[in-house]
Amino acid sequence: MAQENTPLVGIIMGSDSDFEIMKEAVYVLDEFGIASEISVISAHRTPQDLEKYAVTARTRGLKIIIAGAGGAAHLPGVTAAMTVLPVIGVPIFSKKLNGQDSLYSIVQMPAGIPVATVGIDNARNAALLALQILALSDSAIMTAMEEFRIKLADASRQKTGKIRDLLHAKS
Amino acid sequence: MAQENTPLVGIIMGSDSDFEIMKEAVYVLDEFGIASEISVISAHRTPQDLEKYAVTARTRGLKIIIAGAGGAAHLPGVTAAMTVLPVIGVPIFSKKLNGQDSLYSIVQMPAGIPVATVGIDNARNAALLALQILALSDSAIMTAMEEFRIKLADASRQKTGKIRDLLHAKS
Amino acid sequence: MAQENTPLVGIIMGSDSDFEIMKEAVYVLDEFGIASEISVISAHRTPQDLEKYAVTARTRGLKIIIAGAGGAAHLPGVTAAMTVLPVIGVPIFSKKLNGQDSLYSIVQMPAGIPVATVGIDNARNAALLALQILALSDSAIMTAMEEFRIKLADASRQKTGKIRDLLHAKS
Amino acid sequence: MAQENTPLVGIIMGSDSDFEIMKEAVYVLDEFGIASEISVISAHRTPQDLEKYAVTARTRGLKIIIAGAGGAAHLPGVTAAMTVLPVIGVPIFSKKLNGQDSLYSIVQMPAGIPVATVGIDNARNAALLALQILALSDSAIMTAMEEFRIKLADASRQKTGKIRDLLHAKS
Amino acid sequence: MAQENTPLVGIIMGSDSDFEIMKEAVYVLDEFGIASEISVISAHRTPQDLEKYAVTARTRGLKIIIAGAGGAAHLPGVTAAMTVLPVIGVPIFSKKLNGQDSLYSIVQMPAGIPVATVGIDNARNAALLALQILALSDSAIMTAMEEFRIKLADASRQKTGKIRDLLHAKS
Amino acid sequence: MAQENTPLVGIIMGSDSDFEIMKEAVYVLDEFGIASEISVISAHRTPQDLEKYAVTARTRGLKIIIAGAGGAAHLPGVTAAMTVLPVIGVPIFSKKLNGQDSLYSIVQMPAGIPVATVGIDNARNAALLALQILALSDSAIMTAMEEFRIKLADASRQKTGKIRDLLHAKS
Amino acid sequence: MAQENTPLVGIIMGSDSDFEIMKEAVYVLDEFGIASEISVISAHRTPQDLEKYAVTARTRGLKIIIAGAGGAAHLPGVTAAMTVLPVIGVPIFSKKLNGQDSLYSIVQMPAGIPVATVGIDNARNAALLALQILALSDSAIMTAMEEFRIKLADASRQKTGKIRDLLHAKS
Amino acid sequence: MAQENTPLVGIIMGSDSDFEIMKEAVYVLDEFGIASEISVISAHRTPQDLEKYAVTARTRGLKIIIAGAGGAAHLPGVTAAMTVLPVIGVPIFSKKLNGQDSLYSIVQMPAGIPVATVGIDNARNAALLALQILALSDSAIMTAMEEFRIKLADASRQKTGKIRDLLHAKS
Repeated sequence: MAQENTPLVGIIMGSDSDFEIMKEAVYVLDEFGIASEISVISAHRTPQDLEKYAVTARTRGLKIIIAGAGGAAHLPGVTAAMTVLPVIGVPIFSKKLNGQDSLYSIVQMPAGIPVATVGIDNARNAALLALQILALSDSAIMTAMEEFRIKLADASRQKTGKIRDLLHAKS
Repeated sequence: MAQENTPLVGIIMGSDSDFEIMKEAVYVLDEFGIASEISVISAHRTPQDLEKYAVTARTRGLKIIIAGAGGAAHLPGVTAAMTVLPVIGVPIFSKKLNGQDSLYSIVQMPAGIPVATVGIDNARNAALLALQILALSDSAIMTAMEEFRIKLADASRQKTGKIRDLLHAKS
Repeated sequence: MAQENTPLVGIIMGSDSDFEIMKEAVYVLDEFGIASEISVISAHRTPQDLEKYAVTARTRGLKIIIAGAGGAAHLPGVTAAMTVLPVIGVPIFSKKLNGQDSLYSIVQMPAGIPVATVGIDNARNAALLALQILALSDSAIMTAMEEFRIKLADASRQKTGKIRDLLHAKS
Repeated sequence: MAQENTPLVGIIMGSDSDFEIMKEAVYVLDEFGIASEISVISAHRTPQDLEKYAVTARTRGLKIIIAGAGGAAHLPGVTAAMTVLPVIGVPIFSKKLNGQDSLYSIVQMPAGIPVATVGIDNARNAALLALQILALSDSAIMTAMEEFRIKLADASRQKTGKIRDLLHAKS
Repeated sequence: MAQENTPLVGIIMGSDSDFEIMKEAVYVLDEFGIASEISVISAHRTPQDLEKYAVTARTRGLKIIIAGAGGAAHLPGVTAAMTVLPVIGVPIFSKKLNGQDSLYSIVQMPAGIPVATVGIDNARNAALLALQILALSDSAIMTAMEEFRIKLADASRQKTGKIRDLLHAKS
Repeated sequence: MAQENTPLVGIIMGSDSDFEIMKEAVYVLDEFGIASEISVISAHRTPQDLEKYAVTARTRGLKIIIAGAGGAAHLPGVTAAMTVLPVIGVPIFSKKLNGQDSLYSIVQMPAGIPVATVGIDNARNAALLALQILALSDSAIMTAMEEFRIKLADASRQKTGKIRDLLHAKS
Repeated sequence: MAQENTPLVGIIMGSDSDFEIMKEAVYVLDEFGIASEISVISAHRTPQDLEKYAVTARTRGLKIIIAGAGGAAHLPGVTAAMTVLPVIGVPIFSKKLNGQDSLYSIVQMPAGIPVATVGIDNARNAALLALQILALSDSAIMTAMEEFRIKLADASRQKTGKIRDLLHAKS
Repeated sequence: MAQENTPLVGIIMGSDSDFEIMKEAVYVLDEFGIASEISVISAHRTPQDLEKYAVTARTRGLKIIIAGAGGAAHLPGVTAAMTVLPVIGVPIFSKKLNGQDSLYSIVQMPAGIPVATVGIDNARNAALLALQILALSDSAIMTAMEEFRIKLADASRQKTGKIRDLLHAKS
């Protein structure tokens, strides 16, 4: 698959405290040779920056935006409001309300402006979803995604042996 | 208290389906002689309009903004991000998730950008809170608020007689 | 934009009781001239049919699958497990547990197999998300999506007049 | 009761991270002399393996399947869809959403395909339920279950003395 | 499969207000020719009756007990505490707390005493689970369960045609 | 048991909208010949009235206070803070948040000031709890409570016949 | 107040793992000179013991039973079903479901059989509620309770000084 | 902006265990040169103190009261009931019920008596909201709030560089 130099995926988060979760998205995209660009942009602290980011995203070459946020997690939805690029939302966990606030704030968007929401803290799946979308018009990525699924299955299959060993070691 | 012709309170909502709830805020402010201005502005469908609204709010003479929204209720928080006027958020009920999504999306704002959140569908309290804030620098409103509390107490006191009558009527 | 005769979007649901919600996705795609194919396929009652559907989806020309389900809503996730096409999940509301079961069952997928989840009962947004994805490689759809956003904004703007009329009519 | 060499109970889990919980089921069955077979099979990463496992379960001699999974916990329900053997579901706890996602994804199955759900992380009860089911056609297990209840009661009875000692030691 | 005259399945509920839900279990068992016995027994109002019921269940020929209850739904668990027969719990919905109270009170049993919990109001699945358990030692029921699954799949398959007709009728 | 003329039980509620629920407490106490006194007193609208009510309750002859409230249901807790009489709290249901707000606001009192909380909308149980408390020092009430339990059991027992008739009538 | 040698309050819990919470009730009663009796009795593991305990409680001299339990916390309700003594329920916290299961299982009792529920893990309040009930017919306890409230207030009042010192120490 | 010697903001909390959270409000107000006064006052342990505090607040020169409380968090609402000054409520987190109890007890106030609720544990935002309210009649604070937003934005902007450095350091 073609290594891209221009970032195809913009990864944004509301606060640098979300970085430990969101960096996983960068790593996954890196594995598949897709350049991404990671930034801290806050819907609340820097709304004008977010507007500029979202409005110019397509002309800068971005295809997809992954946005992670916690609490009253407005970042994905507000971004989605200002671009027609697909926006993937990652709800960030907080012990307060167990991630329900982040999840509901992201997924319950009004009709008209969708956010493609993945599981709480699941930045990895956000990146994989981005790749599956990019694969629709890039056969190299499509092939890579199919190979990824085979590797995923193989890795899963080896776990049975591992846990049976653990079980016997204990008895 | 001084009757204002210029609206002091801006009342906004994400959708006209919120009007049945939000109009209560207008009525309460009217009772106290405070002019308000009601508008539909969506954080998601008209983000640029919202920005203009919020950024110019203070120079247009608004003192307080009351924002009602449901679901992924970003309107109050996004407004608060673009003005230093106090923003009062009204979570609008939906049977889906019982209003939890609206409440959490509004109240769980990140440090730096507060939204003064009132109860679900409680636009009445949003207006009263606005009045209590305006009263801090307007003794006529302050007096009116104190009288309001007395009337509230009196009305409540008359309920005991009412329910005792109901009780005896049934027995 | 090119009118497609071959369906590009497969719309599936676990039960015909989900049809009243899911038909909205068909209507939205129709408005944009995108052919879709709607089917009832149950992850639980017809798992082999689902497997055949998912495994052959790409070769049959589908680009995206929209899957709606309620309760222990496995349909989107199980579909996603058997194709690398993007799967968009629509949690269907039930008064039991208020849609929390549907939402959590769809969005909380394990790392490796994402489902792009939209709001509860929000089939309309599922279709719009599908269109935004298709637009990445179809400039006609992209243009249509941008026009749609403008119309959405215009429609929203006309609501202010409407509610102000309502308000004055009442007073 | 007859020691079985062929596994009567299949114990499966979506990920080896569930092993610390699910191994308890093996131990309980071992105590009662019932052979079990433990495997990692993912409804999402190895759906074809799961199909083969479920479809052949009965002919391989399994009577009951215990399936543990967390998050969007589809494993028990998908297994149940492909066999008429009783499937017992064990929701695995995660701090995200407190186990609600796992529980709802397992228990809220549609009419037609039941999963016998036990408490969150309660693999021990899954095994005991399997034993109670097997006991219906095996009087040795039935007797053993009755003895188990007597031992359970005796163990519980000795706790009063223990806590009273603790209480007095502290005072 | 052998028509049983002696009830094999006891169906109990805490209140006659649960009857509209629980009667479905009788109907399902009837369809499969399995005699059942339905009773109102309350863990709270008639605890001694419940004890007698549970303690004598096995000698009276019952193989399985299905217990439905709402709110602080103790009936299934208390029954399970007094018999080693498998007890299947049906949480009954109430708008208060949306069925969460019923579900949690039934499923979260302590280690030692399992209750096989099905979905909220899903008495139908309770009966099907009972049949799947009985099928383990009755090949006629096993065959019937397999045929049931085939019919279930066929019924599901006919729904695609139905919804497509609905769709075209509307357009 | 001694018919009391002086009310022994004070029944208060925050709003007359709670009357339909709270009147059940009066009826139950009436059945047992215990005089009660019902009032609307709001912790928020008439806090001074509540203080006077609570502080003088014991000297006015009240033994127990039953307080019903919904939403941010402060009435029971604030009453309990101002008297050492037992206060029984009745959380009143609202569709918003399903009664969780009422329940949590009443039951989660800080150490030092208990409120005896009963189920949502369960004013009947509040009255029965009051009677069980009064019975501790009034043998006539104690006897009446025991007879009540026998009648409760008898009424429950007659339900089995009723539902079996319903069942046969339908088949 | 009269020191009682015969226990007036029975304190029971479903498991010795609840002891760390429930011992607080003993300590509080001790402080007020009220003898209590602590026991582990399980509604599920030793239901016959519980029946004997509850049925004989009154004749053994108990006035009040405090019952603590977690998860599907049936102990308080089942006890209440077998005695007309007031039963106070203490929901025990578990990280699974955050104590919601314990709370709902205890508080949501059906009409007829109340449990006086206190806050999660709040055994201290259970004991204080027991004391407030006993005080109704024991003026020494009543006096002690009033003194306790005064001490509680005094202790609270000293906290302002403490936190102001902390604040200044930091600055 | 004018340094005030008389406290303009009263900060109260139900228990000194809330201090670690609530002190943040003092620090924020200090940064803006606004004198505040911090106290422990319990709605339950010292209700008369609270009444005196609330009733005299305005004449003592307070403009705004910030009240933090957890569990059945009545402090903000009861304070609001006894003054027409704006009361800002801070729900304090507890692992039991994840802060839902604190949040609901504070925000769900009845019509008539609003509490301006901020996010769980977000004392910082309570102070900023107080400042935004004070700024309405103090142009120096208004200017300071606008500068604060600029600094907030600048600090946020520097985070992008920080996380990109972290990312490259790891690779």
